[in-house]
Parts: sequence; structure tokens; C-alpha cells
Amino acid sequence: MTKKTIVPMPVIRRLPRYHRYLEELLKNDVKRISSRELSERMGVTASQIRQDLNNYGGFGQQGYGYNVEELYNTLTKILGLDKTYSTIIIGAGNLGQAIANYTNFERTGFSLKGIFDINPRLFGLKIRDIEIMDVETLEDFLSKNKIDIAILCIPKDNSQIMADRLVKAGIKAIWNFSPIDLKVPDDVILENVHLSDSLLTLSYRINEENLLKAKVEEK
Amino acid sequence: MTKKTIVPMPVIRRLPRYHRYLEELLKNDVKRISSRELSERMGVTASQIRQDLNNYGGFGQQGYGYNVEELYNTLTKILGLDKTYSTIIIGAGNLGQAIANYTNFERTGFSLKGIFDINPRLFGLKIRDIEIMDVETLEDFLSKNKIDIAILCIPKDNSQIMADRLVKAGIKAIWNFSPIDLKVPDDVILENVHLSDSLLTLSYRINEENLLKAKVEEK
Repeated sequence: MTKKTIVPMPVIRRLPRYHRYLEELLKNDVKRISSRELSERMGVTASQIRQDLNNYGGFGQQGYGYNVEELYNTLTKILGLDKTYSTIIIGAGNLGQAIANYTNFERTGFSLKGIFDINPRLFGLKIRDIEIMDVETLEDFLSKNKIDIAILCIPKDNSQIMADRLVKAGIKAIWNFSPIDLKVPDDVILENVHLSDSLLTLSYRINEENLLKAKVEEK
Repeated sequence: MTKKTIVPMPVIRRLPRYHRYLEELLKNDVKRISSRELSERMGVTASQIRQDLNNYGGFGQQGYGYNVEELYNTLTKILGLDKTYSTIIIGAGNLGQAIANYTNFERTGFSLKGIFDINPRLFGLKIRDIEIMDVETLEDFLSKNKIDIAILCIPKDNSQIMADRLVKAGIKAIWNFSPIDLKVPDDVILENVHLSDSLLTLSYRINEENLLKAKVEEK
């Protein structure tokens, strides 16, 4: 399916949020925070935070709470943000361009090395100083450049074929924006951003009360 | 925080995926599917699927499985996709433009009514026939147009202020792309797409094995 994680995914998904909060606290010059305060701000229980962090060793002292900077630095390391990553984007449409321009990436160590598209009119154009290249040259490019993450921003009809090509060319991590559940080997990491799933969750929530009310009335 | 759901969020988040799978099956002219087959394709257990769907009434017959079209139509209704939604986008940068051009939206009943930005050079330009307007006219626009969903595509520094303005102007659902946990009243639905959280999850997963190995060796 995709590479299995050792720590459960729900735990992992909370880590970037902890990291974000601690970054805010650091900016506001907060030196330490109690687990209760941190939990109130984040809307999770204090024991949840403790349990989550215990996967990576012990943090915080009884009666003192967390040293903000220390915990922030540790989370930086846990999230792998003390390293840099080479990335390429497949698909230079609106979304691909938006991702290429997403300023957070460079700042946090994700370095864009190439953008590929199928449309000849885009070849040679530049986004953030990176030239858009013919996707036919992808394999050649990957044989000459060590790329850690491929970002897939193409329509769903072609995305499985493209994922297969990337995997065959040695890519071990895919950030997928296509609205499809890609099939990749067990040693490949697949992280999806399914925008339409998120939007459908929103429309569900707009209607939930009426929906469940109607169900009760039916009975 | 945000409006609480009646059915637990993890269940709700699986519904769009079920819907997507069933759409594929329908396209491939599959008339019915056993819960085991559906579960194998989706990588969740058959009992999970049954439990999830039981929140909304009973589906499927013992020994027959699911009628694909029937279940698809029911999920369409559950997800609120039998209705249409008026949306506006705040922030006409790369991401806002990508969202505006995201073809899936119109198709599934999400109708873009306005795009707002702070940059005067963008005023009057059109994306998909929708004019970019001065964000100063937002409240006036909202007083004259019934908008169901506001899509927030602005930098995080301004997004809480903007969310407050939207809520004050009567917006009840926000689709947030800013990398921040917005504070909204309990009657407002907030759905986040935190791109950087997703990317950080990916970098975590690239490093997990080495990270946890190092931890074991430390002991």
C-alpha cells in the first residue's frame, strides 16, 4: 500500500501541530509551558500530549512543564526538519505553481530542483528560477539528480502511470495532490493531500444536523 | 473551537473516500460489490465499512453485498452533494487561483461567486469569469449575497483577523488553507488544509526508522 509507520499515524499527524504551536510560543518569547496550558491551547488532553511525546523519549518535568525551546528543537529533529530534501514537481498547472511558490517550503529545508510538465508551451518557462522541463526527460533527470520527494500535481487520469514511473526511477517518497488513492510498493512513502475529500467533509458538516434529524424522523 | 460533529470525525473523513471508490466502480460498470471486496480495495476492514455506514442507516444485504449505484447515491446525499454551495475565495495568489481553477469544485456543486484580494493591481482581473474584488468591499458583498463557504487562501499573519471579519459578516463555514489553527465560534464549521503539516508528516516518515533506531541505541 505505502510504507507503514512504526508510531501510529494519528500520533504522527499531531506532531506538526505541536511544532507550529511551539514556534508561536518561541516567537512570543515564552520560555516554558505547563502541559495543561499547552493542552488547552491545542484542544487535546495533557495526557494525550504526554503519551504522544513518550513515543520519542521523555520530555517535561513534573511540576515544571515543558521547556519551549528544548521541546521545539526536539520536535524539529523528530520531524526531520534538521535535514534538507530535494524535491521535484510533476505538473506545472495552477496547483503545481502554487506549490512551487509556497514560501514555507524553502524555509523549512525543502529545495525545489525541477518542475516537469507535458505541455510544450511551458517548457523553458521558469517558476522561482526553476525551469519547467519536458516530462519525457524525467527519467534522465532522476538518473543524474538525487531527489527525495516527488510532488504530484497532475490530473488523476495520469497520476497512477506517473507514480509507477517515479517509483521505477527510484523515488521513495511521493506527495500526492491527485484525487486518487495511488498504489505504490511497501517501501515507498505516500502522503496525500486530497483537496476534494476535505471539501466534501465540509459539505457533509454543513448538512449533518439536518441529515441525522431526518434519519431520526424516519424511524 | 469549531462546530462539533455528531458522528466522529474519523468516520466522516472516510466517507469521501468511499464515495470516490464507488464513483470509480460505477464508471467501470460494476453493479454490486461484497463488503470484503470493497474493504480489500480500500484497505479498511469490512466491519469498519459496515460500522461507518450504520451511522446513517443500514446498507447492504447479507450475502449480496452493496448495490454500487444505490450506495453511491446515498453517500452523495450524506455528503451533501445533492445540494449546491456558494463560495468565495479570500486571497487571489497562486493558491487562491489554483483553488478557483480546481475543476472538481463546479462539477460537484460548489459555485464560486467572488474572489477578494488586498492587492489593487489584481482588482478587476478575472479568474474563471469571476472578477477579483477589493477585500474592503467584502462586508458589502456578503450583505447582498448568500455565501455558504469562505475559502481562506491568505498568509497566516492576517488570517485570524479575516476569519473574524467573515464570522461577523455571517459566514458559517470556512475552508482554511492558512497554516494556522483559527479560532472560530462553536456554530462555525472550520475545515483546514494544512499543507505544511502534510509535508512535515512526509519528512517525518522519511526519517522515522533512523530516528527510532537511534532512540533504541541510546537506551
